[in-house]
Amino acid sequence: MSITDDVLAAATRARVAARGLALATRAQKDTTLHAMAEALLTRGDEVLAGNAEDVARAEAGGSPANIIDRLRLTRERLEGMAQGLRDVAGLADPVGEVVRGSVLANGLELRQVRVPFGVVGMIYEARPNVTADAAGICLKSGNAVLLRGSSSARSSNAAIVAVLRDAVEASGLEPDIVQMVPGDSHESVKVLMQARGHVDVLIPRGGAGLIQSVVDESTVPVIETGVGNCHVYVDSRADLDKALRVVLNAKTHRTSVCNAAESLLVHADVADEFLPRVVRALQDEQVTIHGDAAFASYEGVVPATDDDWATEYLSLDIAARVVPDLDTALEHIRQWSSGHSDAILTEDQGAARRFVAEVDSAAVLVNASTRFTDGGEFGFGAEIGISTQKLHARGPMGLPEMTSTKYVVIGDGHVR
Amino acid sequence: MSITDDVLAAATRARVAARGLALATRAQKDTTLHAMAEALLTRGDEVLAGNAEDVARAEAGGSPANIIDRLRLTRERLEGMAQGLRDVAGLADPVGEVVRGSVLANGLELRQVRVPFGVVGMIYEARPNVTADAAGICLKSGNAVLLRGSSSARSSNAAIVAVLRDAVEASGLEPDIVQMVPGDSHESVKVLMQARGHVDVLIPRGGAGLIQSVVDESTVPVIETGVGNCHVYVDSRADLDKALRVVLNAKTHRTSVCNAAESLLVHADVADEFLPRVVRALQDEQVTIHGDAAFASYEGVVPATDDDWATEYLSLDIAARVVPDLDTALEHIRQWSSGHSDAILTEDQGAARRFVAEVDSAAVLVNASTRFTDGGEFGFGAEIGISTQKLHARGPMGLPEMTSTKYVVIGDGHVR
Repeated sequence: MSITDDVLAAATRARVAARGLALATRAQKDTTLHAMAEALLTRGDEVLAGNAEDVARAEAGGSPANIIDRLRLTRERLEGMAQGLRDVAGLADPVGEVVRGSVLANGLELRQVRVPFGVVGMIYEARPNVTADAAGICLKSGNAVLLRGSSSARSSNAAIVAVLRDAVEASGLEPDIVQMVPGDSHESVKVLMQARGHVDVLIPRGGAGLIQSVVDESTVPVIETGVGNCHVYVDSRADLDKALRVVLNAKTHRTSVCNAAESLLVHADVADEFLPRVVRALQDEQVTIHGDAAFASYEGVVPATDDDWATEYLSLDIAARVVPDLDTALEHIRQWSSGHSDAILTEDQGAARRFVAEVDSAAVLVNASTRFTDGGEFGFGAEIGISTQKLHARGPMGLPEMTSTKYVVIGDGHVR
Repeated sequence: MSITDDVLAAATRARVAARGLALATRAQKDTTLHAMAEALLTRGDEVLAGNAEDVARAEAGGSPANIIDRLRLTRERLEGMAQGLRDVAGLADPVGEVVRGSVLANGLELRQVRVPFGVVGMIYEARPNVTADAAGICLKSGNAVLLRGSSSARSSNAAIVAVLRDAVEASGLEPDIVQMVPGDSHESVKVLMQARGHVDVLIPRGGAGLIQSVVDESTVPVIETGVGNCHVYVDSRADLDKALRVVLNAKTHRTSVCNAAESLLVHADVADEFLPRVVRALQDEQVTIHGDAAFASYEGVVPATDDDWATEYLSLDIAARVVPDLDTALEHIRQWSSGHSDAILTEDQGAARRFVAEVDSAAVLVNASTRFTDGGEFGFGAEIGISTQKLHARGPMGLPEMTSTKYVVIGDGHVR
């Protein structure tokens, strides 16, 4: 069989298995999720052995330390993956939820109910814990999943999927609801991306390059996730103590994540007071500031170019600019923001209201760190990714975002 | 300027105009919609003159009578278009609706609110009334619209858009919220379909060929609409009087629409009683039956091929088959349905429950005609189309389906 046949055959098995899963009760799904969690721990040695192969290959290939750290699994990380599956078991089942319902004037009963998509394709990089997370979220939302992790984690992912499939089967569900995409070449990803009709939705999770290539090459509908060029704007009426705290948190709390701040805008009216404080505080935390002329007058600040306004650093770097007014801040964000999360610091109700209304991003925050844009922080309990597109889902995606709906119409021989 | 430049320039004007429209109050939008309705009537002569050109061209080109009928505008049809705009003015404004909201454990206020997409592209065929409908629905949902009707209606559409733009401008909104796509070649449609980032969503409305080509060629996210290979299944426990009424209504009430029935499945247990009745009743209404062996034993029934199971006739034709059981009916629908609307006739609660759970279509109906799958019938007040895809919207799309959402997070210096 060709790789095309292999991938489409896997998708077809997923489609058939998804039909059974769509009819599974919440109790069946939760029992299975607990069995999956248990299996990851009792068969942890297999997973760690697979992971050791990946780590050894990465080290031999000279991968940087931070990449190897993301790749490496430990007993503790396995426990985290298992707990993630148990957490998903504890969440409400989105399938069957009545989104709206009414009785029409003619007596027809109308209900819009949540149903699974069917078959979900996940294309993701490096961290092998995504394999278990995605399997759990897809299972609970009634979707079969085709998993395509990075080839650097292939032994880890293969071991995790083998363990999870056995647990699914032992629990009485069809194991083909969780599958790896066959093949390890780019060709197999390409087949997946072109499998319109076989795969209902593709979710890429990873860097900007990965996401862009999936968006460009897919005929399957895609939910774009996660590129975050996030801004913090300190208004003329900001409380500068709060502003300093929020800027530091948004930039330095965790730098490698999509909701970290990458650009700082400061209103000219507070520049004289705020710049010395924020420059020192950021530099104390080892942050490199790429600043406009106003910022660049401070020692250690690197002059910024347009590239800096566009960059998602994901590191201890921040672009910084002084703006003459709120309009310029809004214009800057309109031009450069990736539409993920942008924050204003202000005590002025009018400025906050304009910022909330005019910034067109998945999350707009007032006097709060961009780091809060997160399924966990929002109370969703689980998150498959953060959508930066406008269709279907926008912002953190929990279980309900992993479903479609159907209309159910009940009559008694009704005709028009 | 090249056609590419022309189309992208129009999209850019739409983007800028959309920003203002997103901030418009409901009162401003409703006033504008009433002005648009009024202008269509007071300047009806201009619209009818444009339409007369299109009709003359179609007649000279030898278009069939039903196409010319769809194309032709009258005073009465103008009044219908105007009333449609007034109806939209009467509907609730989806923009700003709080979809969900809560206060998180740390005191952060979280709200998910509806916001416009921004720029919507409509690609549609023949009927010029879609021009006014789409303009009204997009305006009320806060979206700028780029309209690309069929070239056979170009003079009608140009006249309608000119009238509507003047009314928009006179009402104080930016006229570029309603624009025709520049150019009349396929090249200009192609630019529109590739204008990812400039256009937020494309909605094709028309025949299967149009929709397929938009799905295939677009990099802009698409909402597929309207292809309906709809089934009516008459179960062993059906009330045959109700069944006859529903089959006739679903097939003959209006044949050219996507929610008309195209296939009839009858359980073998009731075939002896039901087939003579339904064959006679359908033939009395001039319906040609394309039947399996059981049906083909009746006079006038044409033997069916697989093509018949796959066909959306949109005419006085129906494919018909006797099935041995519910499972075979479900399997037939799984194989051939376009996922629009499928109905079961049964008094058996168990059969109804299985049909509703297992048929994966936008609308699943029990003891009711497929003709009810319609925004008007569902009480949405306006409909831009019927989505047959699973992402974002499924089934009839009203005003809320023409929006995205954003998260608004309000804190008081909150950090993680």
